[in-house]
Amino acid sequence: MKYIKQAMEYKELIDTLMSDKHHADIVLYGGRVVNVLTREVYKADIAIKGKYILMVGNCESLIGENTIVVDVEGKYLSPGFIDSHMHFESSMLTITEFSRLSIPSGTTTLIADPHEIGNALGPIGMKAMADEASKVVNHVRLVVPALTPDCPSLETAGVDVSSKDMQDLLNYKNIIGIGELQGFSNAKHVYRNTPEIITDLLASTTYAKSIGKVVDGNAPELFGEELAAHIICTGGKCSCHETTTKEECIEKLRQGVYVFMREGSTQKNMAQCIRAVTEEGLDSRRCILATDDMVAKDLEKLGHMNEIVKRTINQGVNPIEAIQMVTINPATYFGLEDRGVLSPSKVADIAIINDLNEMDVEAVFIDGKLVAAEGELIVDLPKYTYPNCVKNSVKREMLIDADLEIRSEKNNVTVRCIRAIPDQNLTECIEEETAVRNGVVQSDVANDLLYIACVERYGRNNNIGKAFVKGFGLKKGAFAESVAHDTHNITVVGTNIGDMVVAVNKVIEMGGGLAVVNNGKVLEELRLPVGGLITDELTGTEVSEKISKLEKIVEKDLGGRLHAPFMHLSFLALSTSPKWKITDKGLIDVNNFEILDPIV
Amino acid sequence: MKYIKQAMEYKELIDTLMSDKHHADIVLYGGRVVNVLTREVYKADIAIKGKYILMVGNCESLIGENTIVVDVEGKYLSPGFIDSHMHFESSMLTITEFSRLSIPSGTTTLIADPHEIGNALGPIGMKAMADEASKVVNHVRLVVPALTPDCPSLETAGVDVSSKDMQDLLNYKNIIGIGELQGFSNAKHVYRNTPEIITDLLASTTYAKSIGKVVDGNAPELFGEELAAHIICTGGKCSCHETTTKEECIEKLRQGVYVFMREGSTQKNMAQCIRAVTEEGLDSRRCILATDDMVAKDLEKLGHMNEIVKRTINQGVNPIEAIQMVTINPATYFGLEDRGVLSPSKVADIAIINDLNEMDVEAVFIDGKLVAAEGELIVDLPKYTYPNCVKNSVKREMLIDADLEIRSEKNNVTVRCIRAIPDQNLTECIEEETAVRNGVVQSDVANDLLYIACVERYGRNNNIGKAFVKGFGLKKGAFAESVAHDTHNITVVGTNIGDMVVAVNKVIEMGGGLAVVNNGKVLEELRLPVGGLITDELTGTEVSEKISKLEKIVEKDLGGRLHAPFMHLSFLALSTSPKWKITDKGLIDVNNFEILDPIV
Repeated sequence: MKYIKQAMEYKELIDTLMSDKHHADIVLYGGRVVNVLTREVYKADIAIKGKYILMVGNCESLIGENTIVVDVEGKYLSPGFIDSHMHFESSMLTITEFSRLSIPSGTTTLIADPHEIGNALGPIGMKAMADEASKVVNHVRLVVPALTPDCPSLETAGVDVSSKDMQDLLNYKNIIGIGELQGFSNAKHVYRNTPEIITDLLASTTYAKSIGKVVDGNAPELFGEELAAHIICTGGKCSCHETTTKEECIEKLRQGVYVFMREGSTQKNMAQCIRAVTEEGLDSRRCILATDDMVAKDLEKLGHMNEIVKRTINQGVNPIEAIQMVTINPATYFGLEDRGVLSPSKVADIAIINDLNEMDVEAVFIDGKLVAAEGELIVDLPKYTYPNCVKNSVKREMLIDADLEIRSEKNNVTVRCIRAIPDQNLTECIEEETAVRNGVVQSDVANDLLYIACVERYGRNNNIGKAFVKGFGLKKGAFAESVAHDTHNITVVGTNIGDMVVAVNKVIEMGGGLAVVNNGKVLEELRLPVGGLITDELTGTEVSEKISKLEKIVEKDLGGRLHAPFMHLSFLALSTSPKWKITDKGLIDVNNFEILDPIV
Repeated sequence: MKYIKQAMEYKELIDTLMSDKHHADIVLYGGRVVNVLTREVYKADIAIKGKYILMVGNCESLIGENTIVVDVEGKYLSPGFIDSHMHFESSMLTITEFSRLSIPSGTTTLIADPHEIGNALGPIGMKAMADEASKVVNHVRLVVPALTPDCPSLETAGVDVSSKDMQDLLNYKNIIGIGELQGFSNAKHVYRNTPEIITDLLASTTYAKSIGKVVDGNAPELFGEELAAHIICTGGKCSCHETTTKEECIEKLRQGVYVFMREGSTQKNMAQCIRAVTEEGLDSRRCILATDDMVAKDLEKLGHMNEIVKRTINQGVNPIEAIQMVTINPATYFGLEDRGVLSPSKVADIAIINDLNEMDVEAVFIDGKLVAAEGELIVDLPKYTYPNCVKNSVKREMLIDADLEIRSEKNNVTVRCIRAIPDQNLTECIEEETAVRNGVVQSDVANDLLYIACVERYGRNNNIGKAFVKGFGLKKGAFAESVAHDTHNITVVGTNIGDMVVAVNKVIEMGGGLAVVNNGKVLEELRLPVGGLITDELTGTEVSEKISKLEKIVEKDLGGRLHAPFMHLSFLALSTSPKWKITDKGLIDVNNFEILDPIV
């Protein structure tokens, strides 16, 4: 009977419009409406009643003695912005703290994929996040993974999510669909090696569609038959947020894929993708902007979707067309009919902008209420504390040195070594010679040949995957973290076994987090109690400062030469991107779906 | 569990794409794909498997020894066309016979509003039509009226449809939403005079939205507060198929209304509306083409949506943009995710076109099957006979002369007279002097002052509304019909009471239809047994010939000077369009919501 309540709300709006007795609550007077429906800007007022837009046009007659009239002459009035694909976990922040930073820049709707916490905690974690989504003033909706872990035969997640969980998850409040289909991004390999995954994904996606939910999909570097197969697997309407070239973008758009052009803290693909529009003139109705992964510092210093729109405008896109990519286009894709445009009956989510090319947001309305002005949130948004059921996710005994040792009976061995590449998820694979002492294969700090390990942390099998890595440049010590895509076991890199053990044990002791160790001493740490991924103890600013501090210590005290070392380490566990990765099951040859011995 | 069947179908497609063992059923080879996603035309093949598009691109690898390869070099491959708003009743044809005429011109999906049969028979009639929709090879979906009659206080329908019927109707197969909201087209009057209608409509529309159904709405000549109220009443996403001017079209598009630019057999509004695009450059994603009312003759001689697209191109619109208006735009509006574009997993509904500017359709595929070629249907489409429950809708005693007489005790009276305007629904209102003989007010044939009456035909109250009419120019005789928008009581116009009675009685005797009478003799007739609106006895060609014959008799034998006299008469009962109309309750002053005495 929820629709009766809706009918009564609408009736009140109609009464206000049609009788002389009632008036608008607020009229934004004399602004320039950014009409994303027609791609125009023109002078008009916006009348608001309750949480809804009542009318856009000449609203004089709706002004009564109790109406708040806000003079917005010269300002641009845009629908609030939508981030169509993002992970709160990447910021290590709660939804609340992320929202505190993102709302003032005009973002009013966040579509989050909780696939990190989904890997760590399964439905319990995702539902806890969906619960928090009800508490914030902005609109947060989730799209959940249909499959964890990404590659069941190659890694261990905290919980195995599959089609059996979809009915429970997809009917939970604030969950609007299935997120990125990781299991299919490597289409041919998945089809050949684990065809049962495709069958299971199809059960999930067709169920989702049958109850009117979206399925995001994700199709990096897929073309031809593989792209077609992926599109079919999603049920025919999908998105891809990892399209990186103009040619790929053209092909995706031609095949009906909504291209989420990514501009996050690290991955920046918009400038290439947008050339399909600026150079080829393709219809941009299926072009959408998304961040995927944003760290707190960037939200604070640069802004959020307003900044991404500005960058898109700088690539030569008409400002209104760029704004369509964060408003009407995603609202249409997600079937969010109540937002994304400024017209009667839509929720009054409005960004007031000073200059369309600069995209500097002066004030933000959400649900008809002024929530931010001059870059600051002006409504109360209490700190959110997660329930205990999503804490203490780290369940294993402390390590001893022997756990991390790679042993050999030879004096010298050739080892397999992952080569980290700055700012990329993918890696190179190389082989190096190194010494063995007392049966233990040695690192070679002078040659930047370090130890890497991935420690299963959910109490399921106590696996430890071990191998070697180059690229971090540490001269001493070790650092570890419980953030390691996508299964988020504890990953550690170090010059020596002793410090690595201390670092991992610190992470275990904290119940998840980041730790830097030298000479057996913990130099700095960050607790991430929620699923080992998120802190509900610190604000965005505090997290941002803490991470800067941790990074500086890795650089200064350990001699690390890779910027953002924790982020780079976390992606060395991502078993869906080539070529070699480390999981709890060992060194993974991604392209061949194989587990390799670290010693040749 | 329907989704499991879908999953298995998709699995077969994926197997075909990913393994070397399976191949496409059909490959349309070397055509020029009209890509309505990107607004491009380029060379590509289309592979079909079962009823689905498997792939669009280079499909060589999908050709096996059992694949049918169709050389379409030089031809254009477009998604099949959608007519987004139409009434089968306007053609007097069954869905089957209409489809027989419309499929060869490329129309593959028809969204029909059965509000004529809904007025006559209520849910039983609409569900009977929804049943027939399952029998045809093309895709027919219905959007049903939320309210019959349009103006409950001013007229009598066969059945009163309201929100109480929505659960039953909107969950019936092939019914995808609510159609045109007649009750709101005259917003201020409805609000002032029958506010309970708005409450009831809101209950219907919010229920429809709550179960994921569409609500069309309809907002002719509404602006400002009234347009806003209408949009809110539909739940915020609606269409209007009676927008007639460029300015109105701009305003509708700005407010988010999907403008169904109408090009039917009589109402032609596209050329005005499209100026919002061609002259103002507005984003056309919410512009859609629709026919509303098409007669069989036009379908036969001119074509269907292909002809409307051609006319739109002739107004200066890019051909692909025009085709978007009958493919992706309506599919997006109606949430028909499985069609409207050519991409993997969509149903293989394809129009093969020789020349994009001429829009001459050479062949048509529906659900992966070739169904039409060179203008002819090439699959078996058996004639459909309706069940008895929707026949015999005319339930009243035969008339006698006294029933139609307008009496006065004076010798001369001033009478109120509807003035019919050629090719318009709206009328003028005039007053004329005329004589009274034996207490009966006389017609004045020399002055073209004729009798008009509307006879309730559903056995509910035996009402007869009577007044005078100018514009038909009859010199003798009378004609009557059970087609009279929107309640479809029997309407009759004539020079003398005697012939009018014979004509009405003939319609009663036939159980509905059209009849022309002179000197007490029926000159010609057309039986419309289904709801008094549709024949399931004749083909499209036969209906078209029969109507031509009837029209010729009115012109030649009765001296009529208005072309399409039956159609003009049928709209004189439409109580939602100004100024004066005739219903079973009498002469209606539409603008003032009043019933007037025919004598001043």
